[in-house]
Amino acid sequence: MANKIITISREFGSGGKYIGMLVAKKLGIPYYDKDIIEKIAEESGFVDDFIKRVSEYAPSKSIFAYSFVGRGANGESIEDKIFAIQTKVIKELAEKGPCVIVGRSADYILREMDPLNVFIYASHKAKVRRTTSFKGVSEKEAEKLIYETDKKRSINYKYYTGRDWGARENYTVMLNSTDLGVEKTAEFIAQLYKQEN
Amino acid sequence: MANKIITISREFGSGGKYIGMLVAKKLGIPYYDKDIIEKIAEESGFVDDFIKRVSEYAPSKSIFAYSFVGRGANGESIEDKIFAIQTKVIKELAEKGPCVIVGRSADYILREMDPLNVFIYASHKAKVRRTTSFKGVSEKEAEKLIYETDKKRSINYKYYTGRDWGARENYTVMLNSTDLGVEKTAEFIAQLYKQEN
Repeated sequence: MANKIITISREFGSGGKYIGMLVAKKLGIPYYDKDIIEKIAEESGFVDDFIKRVSEYAPSKSIFAYSFVGRGANGESIEDKIFAIQTKVIKELAEKGPCVIVGRSADYILREMDPLNVFIYASHKAKVRRTTSFKGVSEKEAEKLIYETDKKRSINYKYYTGRDWGARENYTVMLNSTDLGVEKTAEFIAQLYKQEN
Repeated sequence: MANKIITISREFGSGGKYIGMLVAKKLGIPYYDKDIIEKIAEESGFVDDFIKRVSEYAPSKSIFAYSFVGRGANGESIEDKIFAIQTKVIKELAEKGPCVIVGRSADYILREMDPLNVFIYASHKAKVRRTTSFKGVSEKEAEKLIYETDKKRSINYKYYTGRDWGARENYTVMLNSTDLGVEKTAEFIAQLYKQEN
């Protein structure tokens, strides 16, 4: 195995995004997540007129907020189009060189490049604590957010990859950020990457 | 977290037992698995007359081969008695000092000692390959053995712990020995242990 790319999948509230940033920093390689990939897609010209037109009618400025809005002329949903665009962006980024990609089914999209696929999870208690403090919401709202976000991730992942989100066979390592702590989890991934490359 | 004990749970054919031995060797700490725990139990005097009497009628010399044979005078099954004995042995071993324990629901039994709980898994192909070469069986037999052993582990684990075997929340790390290789998997666990202790 010679992993050039690290993909990080994570439970909502597990600190996976922050861990991804730390890993990239430790290794001195670029970090990409949903927001960055969306920005690149918008700048790249991959976003076509149809999606732009739909997004004119919506309140947010992000084109990618319009999942499930409707279907294009050829029967393709907006979400399908967005997935196709993100796939294109992710493949281009990965071909540029080593990087860390958080989310966006990158483990599946880059499967032929044999990435180091990491899954980060945490105790329910820790996820609630993290969500209440970082999102400024109540415990009840945090629980709802955790449940709904991961449910959506699971459905999307299944739909686009045919795989089960969080099922161990899809990952090289799965790490409990509550037991290890976010700093050590990141250090651990960085060490593993260095050993392999 | 200050883990004195490493527990290893594993899919059949993933090399988990061998990895456990390697980890113990690297760290210079004792290694225990089913066979060793049974031997200690037999020598320790924990095995009572009832189990001894039942085992006289069975062909194998191991007392622990008699699971599901029947129920004792107080309605407790042989398997329940054996679990109680193994629990006692495992707790005594853990109290002696750092060690690696493979299988036997040690992650659950020692939960109050906060062990480093590792789960080892592998690709189906790799498990079949490993099983055919180490057990000298056909591919078909290997597949049956893998399926039935893990099914039995899963049922026993659920029965005695109330937890789901292989569910990520029970483990500190889960490692794919096919992607990492057994040697690197062991090295990885040893490094993690050293960092924590």
